[in-house]
Amino acid sequence: MTAATAIDTGDIAREMAELGRHARDAVHTLGQATTDQKNAALHAAAESLRRNTEALLSANARDMAAAEASQIAASLLDRLKLDEGRIEAMAVGLEQIADLPDPVGEVLSSWSRPNGLQISRVRVPLGVIGIIYESRPNVTADAGGLCLKSGNAAILRGGSESFHSSGAILECLQAGLATAGLLGGAIQLVPTTDRAAVGEMLTMTDFIDIIVPRGGKSLIERVQTESKIPVIAHLEGLCHTYIDGDSDTAMATDIVVNAKMRRPGICGATETLLVDSAAALKTLPKIIEALANAGCELRGDEATQAIDERVGKATEQDWWTEYLEPVLSIRQVDGLDGAIEHINTYSSHHTDSIVTNDAEKAERFLNVVDSAIVMHNASTQFADGGEFGMGAEIGISTGRLHARGPVGVEQLTTFKYVVRGEGQVRP
Amino acid sequence: MTAATAIDTGDIAREMAELGRHARDAVHTLGQATTDQKNAALHAAAESLRRNTEALLSANARDMAAAEASQIAASLLDRLKLDEGRIEAMAVGLEQIADLPDPVGEVLSSWSRPNGLQISRVRVPLGVIGIIYESRPNVTADAGGLCLKSGNAAILRGGSESFHSSGAILECLQAGLATAGLLGGAIQLVPTTDRAAVGEMLTMTDFIDIIVPRGGKSLIERVQTESKIPVIAHLEGLCHTYIDGDSDTAMATDIVVNAKMRRPGICGATETLLVDSAAALKTLPKIIEALANAGCELRGDEATQAIDERVGKATEQDWWTEYLEPVLSIRQVDGLDGAIEHINTYSSHHTDSIVTNDAEKAERFLNVVDSAIVMHNASTQFADGGEFGMGAEIGISTGRLHARGPVGVEQLTTFKYVVRGEGQVRP
Repeated sequence: MTAATAIDTGDIAREMAELGRHARDAVHTLGQATTDQKNAALHAAAESLRRNTEALLSANARDMAAAEASQIAASLLDRLKLDEGRIEAMAVGLEQIADLPDPVGEVLSSWSRPNGLQISRVRVPLGVIGIIYESRPNVTADAGGLCLKSGNAAILRGGSESFHSSGAILECLQAGLATAGLLGGAIQLVPTTDRAAVGEMLTMTDFIDIIVPRGGKSLIERVQTESKIPVIAHLEGLCHTYIDGDSDTAMATDIVVNAKMRRPGICGATETLLVDSAAALKTLPKIIEALANAGCELRGDEATQAIDERVGKATEQDWWTEYLEPVLSIRQVDGLDGAIEHINTYSSHHTDSIVTNDAEKAERFLNVVDSAIVMHNASTQFADGGEFGMGAEIGISTGRLHARGPVGVEQLTTFKYVVRGEGQVRP
Repeated sequence: MTAATAIDTGDIAREMAELGRHARDAVHTLGQATTDQKNAALHAAAESLRRNTEALLSANARDMAAAEASQIAASLLDRLKLDEGRIEAMAVGLEQIADLPDPVGEVLSSWSRPNGLQISRVRVPLGVIGIIYESRPNVTADAGGLCLKSGNAAILRGGSESFHSSGAILECLQAGLATAGLLGGAIQLVPTTDRAAVGEMLTMTDFIDIIVPRGGKSLIERVQTESKIPVIAHLEGLCHTYIDGDSDTAMATDIVVNAKMRRPGICGATETLLVDSAAALKTLPKIIEALANAGCELRGDEATQAIDERVGKATEQDWWTEYLEPVLSIRQVDGLDGAIEHINTYSSHHTDSIVTNDAEKAERFLNVVDSAIVMHNASTQFADGGEFGMGAEIGISTGRLHARGPVGVEQLTTFKYVVRGEGQVRP
């Protein structure tokens, strides 16, 4: 490994505090940076990524060689890999962030008081954002770019496997900042793979305003347990699609196959299909046929198993499971109320959808189901900032506070109240 | 003390989980309650407070007797005391909450996508709110009413000194809920004064969505350290007023005297006065004279001590101190930049104000000072939800996430995305 990993724990605390100070310094100037300045930095960083393709590929080759030597899973190797297409995609991603409206300075509302005070709520950056992620090196560019556009300083902690790749990407981001006359402290990378640095980040309350973990459930849970800093996290996407008795079977089939099989590994993929038992014999055979043809493993309750022998047995554990694979659990429920009861018990409150022709039932579902995203006659795979028209996202929050659902540049801001008077005093 | 305080720790955990379950049950129905239903409960509770004035006074007398016997400070005794005026004020407070617009169901924004999906962001309750407060029994009514209006279930944990008073107030709130056909789980009071109940509340992540502490710094710090649940807290109001060289001395004097002395104990009171050194000889003598006449103790830097012998010596510690008393620290600074530097170092990011006739300097101050509330030519004592026109507030948040500044019914909500389709699947 590199020399940077040999730092001892005392040094790590000092090193992290140093990053924190640079970030704080940067955030004071970044909040005042013009939109043009931030966009210039993003465009210059994109150009730098393209110009340094060779250096990026060679840094990535070091990471890939180390990963292969340690025999990590093929799926992780694929996430880690950079090629020319992926580098171009990172560059385009930064340019798309530049194209987004600048959220900073937006007047959210304004009003005047009987005493003449003029009050407005103005959007401002959150401050310093600590982002902890796993193997995909492109997160370095995406997260850095989103933080920059929203006026925040970013302290990035990538996966140890992608250490050299992320470092090379960071150099391109730094080149972009320098071109636009912005402080390098605006986007920094933790310069060690030592896990103690994560513990340090999670307690740096003086330097970091918010932590955003991106990765698997164990990372998220560690961060939520240990962090002394508020966390915006995506914990789990245990999404449901409910097929009501009064629905079009062709539409229901298209939606369910898409919701599960388009990309089974994304957080918006449907994991459990609920079907109105009154219409199961009409609807389920066609849905099961289509899913089985698409290569989906099916696990159902007894009534569903009785319909088709390709359906295996679902246990209580299945209702609690986010498969992230081509596996779907199926349960027959007693109409809309049965569906709502199941969802309110098992859902991770990410995204849940109803398929029905009955407008009243649809409204009741949309109203009563307590999830970040609720849908009518649409595939749960639309749960995505880009599909919502919000531009790039740093994740989808399953928490209830501050940001709920897709976290884009707007969700990386807070606001302040600006009060303008003419000498008013309070009686 | 009462029998309720004799519960052992295992019982407390069970008892708190029971409250949690009742709150969860209530929140499912409360989110669907109509505005009329919630307002009916608030009006009936107000009437019940008035009708039960005798019972409230007698419960309060028990608390007062115990408090006097334990020789608590006179200021705490005053906070604890109920009289007919204070009971009427609680009732009026509930009626004012009924008059506020219902935030639940408000469509915050809506748009359609090229594929025909209709997306809207709709305001919904946060869920179950745990409120931990100290001696003032009226918080029971205020907090319960605000949570009810915003569709949240409240689990209230009052100060042990106000145990009987809060219990009597709760009965009136419960009567209101019953009148409107709402579940009693909507507003509950922790039925023990055992401090272990607070520890339990702070870790009940399955039952409580958010914790709001109201009280002194040590309570807030305990809650922020121990809570496993997100916290909306008001930590400290170390507010500044900066008098620029280009300002009207009469206006500056009025504002400073009001900002410090109107009510020195509220969080929006100015604690440190910063004065442009170039204009100190013109401005400070009049301000010092007015403050001294109003009975304010003054502590200044050397240059300020030299102006008036009534000014004592300020130490570094004074710049860090929220006095909450008729004491003011005064420092001369090198113009606007000196003021901004001092504020960004010492401010608790609650409320800071500039007094100047120079519009450009004012805009720079409002833009650069990173506080929840920034003001121009106005007294920091306006930092208040009521003064902002937001109605009753549960506190002023000094955090940056979710709620910043006054926390009223709107800030006690979150939102969800409602997506309406016609069978769309994601390509």
